[in-house]
Amino acid sequence: MTQLIGALDIGGTKIAASVADATGFLARMTEATVKSGAPDALARQCIRLLDAAAEKAGVAPALLQRVGVSSCGPFRLHGDGIALVAPNICGGLSARGNLPNDWTELPLQGVLAARFAQVEIRNDCIAALQGERTFGAVIDARDCVYVTWSTGIGFGLCVDGRLLAGKQGNAGHAGHLLMDPAGQTLCGCGSRGDLESLISGMNITRGQALDTPALFAAAKAGDAQARKLVTTAASWLGRALYDLTVTLDTSVFVIGGSVWQHHGAWLAPIVRHELESRFPVLTHGVTIVPPGLDAFVADVGALCLVMPAEWIEPWRASRPWQNLHHLPN
Amino acid sequence: MTQLIGALDIGGTKIAASVADATGFLARMTEATVKSGAPDALARQCIRLLDAAAEKAGVAPALLQRVGVSSCGPFRLHGDGIALVAPNICGGLSARGNLPNDWTELPLQGVLAARFAQVEIRNDCIAALQGERTFGAVIDARDCVYVTWSTGIGFGLCVDGRLLAGKQGNAGHAGHLLMDPAGQTLCGCGSRGDLESLISGMNITRGQALDTPALFAAAKAGDAQARKLVTTAASWLGRALYDLTVTLDTSVFVIGGSVWQHHGAWLAPIVRHELESRFPVLTHGVTIVPPGLDAFVADVGALCLVMPAEWIEPWRASRPWQNLHHLPN
Repeated sequence: MTQLIGALDIGGTKIAASVADATGFLARMTEATVKSGAPDALARQCIRLLDAAAEKAGVAPALLQRVGVSSCGPFRLHGDGIALVAPNICGGLSARGNLPNDWTELPLQGVLAARFAQVEIRNDCIAALQGERTFGAVIDARDCVYVTWSTGIGFGLCVDGRLLAGKQGNAGHAGHLLMDPAGQTLCGCGSRGDLESLISGMNITRGQALDTPALFAAAKAGDAQARKLVTTAASWLGRALYDLTVTLDTSVFVIGGSVWQHHGAWLAPIVRHELESRFPVLTHGVTIVPPGLDAFVADVGALCLVMPAEWIEPWRASRPWQNLHHLPN
Repeated sequence: MTQLIGALDIGGTKIAASVADATGFLARMTEATVKSGAPDALARQCIRLLDAAAEKAGVAPALLQRVGVSSCGPFRLHGDGIALVAPNICGGLSARGNLPNDWTELPLQGVLAARFAQVEIRNDCIAALQGERTFGAVIDARDCVYVTWSTGIGFGLCVDGRLLAGKQGNAGHAGHLLMDPAGQTLCGCGSRGDLESLISGMNITRGQALDTPALFAAAKAGDAQARKLVTTAASWLGRALYDLTVTLDTSVFVIGGSVWQHHGAWLAPIVRHELESRFPVLTHGVTIVPPGLDAFVADVGALCLVMPAEWIEPWRASRPWQNLHHLPN
C-alpha cells in the first residue's frame, strides 16, 4: 500500500495543499484563502484541496490520512484542538475593516480530524524551524531559532532539541516583544513599541512617502534619513535576538523572510554587533545563518510534522522540494 | 540498603548541603562560600559538606551517590560538564574588585562527578521551578515560569512540561532582557537598560540616599518620588512578564524573592495591568501566584533533580521541608 502524507500551508493570501510519498512530492495545489461563508469554510477548503491533490497524484484520497499543517496564527486551543484567531483572515478581529466576513475564530483541527486520522498543526515559523532542522540550515541542532523578517515578524523556537509550543501553541510570538517605550506606531496586536511595530515590512518606512524596497534603495544610495531608518531597524532586530539568547541560551538563528532575503547581507553586521556586544558568556559563538530551504519551507516543514522517520535520509539525499517549482498546479 | 540523596545550594554568600532519604531530610550543613585557594576549592568544599552531612545523619558517606545541585550562574559547559562563571564568586569576573581571588571560572561538575555517581546541576531559578512543580504552587503545571525579584532578577522556564536548559544550561537569564534604551545604570552583566539594572534590589533606589526597605516605606507612606520609583519598577517587571508570555505562551508565573515577598501584594495590580492589557489571546488567563515552598526552595528543588519517583507522593503528604528549620546545623 502506498504510504502517503499531506501538507497544508495556510496563509492570509493563499492556501497550498501538497501530497507526498517516500519518493517526494506528487502534487501541489494552491488557491486564494477563502474569506467568506460559514466559519468552517477555510477548513473545508483545506480538505477539498488535499483531496484534489491526491486525485491529481493518481491516489485514492481515502489513502491520505496523515496531514501536517503550517498556519498563520495566533491559535486558540479548545477541547477539539486548535482554532485560528488570525486577524489577517478573521474580519471580526481585524483593525482594518477590509475583510468580507465578521469571523472572530475559525475551527480548524476539529474539522480536519473528522476527515484525517492524524493532524499536526503548528504556527508557520515553528513548522519552518522543523523543516530547517530536518532538511535545511540547522539539521539536528538542539538550540536554534527561526526568524522571519517580512511584512510581519515571527519566530520558531527550539530548546534542548524540542520545538516549543506553549499552552495554546503560540510560543514564538516574540515579534511582539516590547522594545521601545517611546514607540508610537500601533501594531496589529494593539501594542505600541513592540518589535513588529518598529521594523516589520509594513512599518519600517515610518510614514515616509516611499515603500520598503524604495527605502532600502535610498539607504544603499547614501540617503542619510533612509539609512538611519534601516540601520535602526537592524539594531532593534539585534536587540531582540539578544533578548532571545539570554532567555533561551540558544546557539543559532536562521533568518528568512523577504526583508532579510534581500537586505540581510547588508544589515547583518549591525544585527551581529547588537547581539554580540553584550553578556559574552551567553552570546559568544551564537551564529546567524541563512535558511537552507527555499520558498517551499512551509510545505516541507508541514510535511516534517507527520513524515515517517525512514523517509528522512532518502529525502536528504534527493532534496525533492527542489522540484516543486515544476509540479503542475 | 538505605536509599540516600543529596542536595547542594550554592550561592555567593553561603553553601548548604543536605542529605535526605524517603522519609525526609536527615541533616543539613551550611558554610560561608569559599572564595580563596585553588579554583577547585568550592567544589571540594561542596564534597566535604555533603560527606559531613551524611556522617551527621549517621550514614556512611559512600552511600551518598546521587546529588542535585542548585547554583548561582552563569554556567559554562566543558567536556566534563558545567563550570561556574559567577561574578559574585569569581574575582576575575567581578567588576567591583572586592573578592579575594582572581578566578575566572570554577570547575564544578567534573570534580563532583569524580566523587558521586550522579550529579545534576541547574541554575538556582530552574531548580526552584523544579521544586515548585513537584511540591509547591504549580504542581505538574506544563507551562510555567519561576521569577525571583531580589538583589538580582532571575527566571526558571518550563514549556510543554519540560524545564528549559539551553546550550550551556543558562536558559532563563531573562533578568538581562533589554527594556529601556534610555537606561543609564550599569548592570553586572555590562549592559545598561536591562531589567536587572532597572529594578533589582541593588538598583531600584537609583542613587537615592536610602536603601530598598526605606524606599518602599517612603512609597507606602505617600512620598511621591519614592512611589514613582517603585511603581515604575513594577511596570518594568510586568512588561518583562508580558515579553516572556508572548515568547513562551506560558500559563502562570510563580514570583518569589525578598522584594516580592515583602511588597508583592502591593505591587501586583501594577504588574498584572502591564501583563494583561496587551495581546489578549496570549495573555488572557495568565496568573501570578506566590511560591508554595518557603526559604528552603533551593534545597528542595535540588533534591527534586535526583529524587526517586516513588518518594514524591509520600513527600507531598508529609512535607518534610517544613522541619528544616529544626535540623541542627
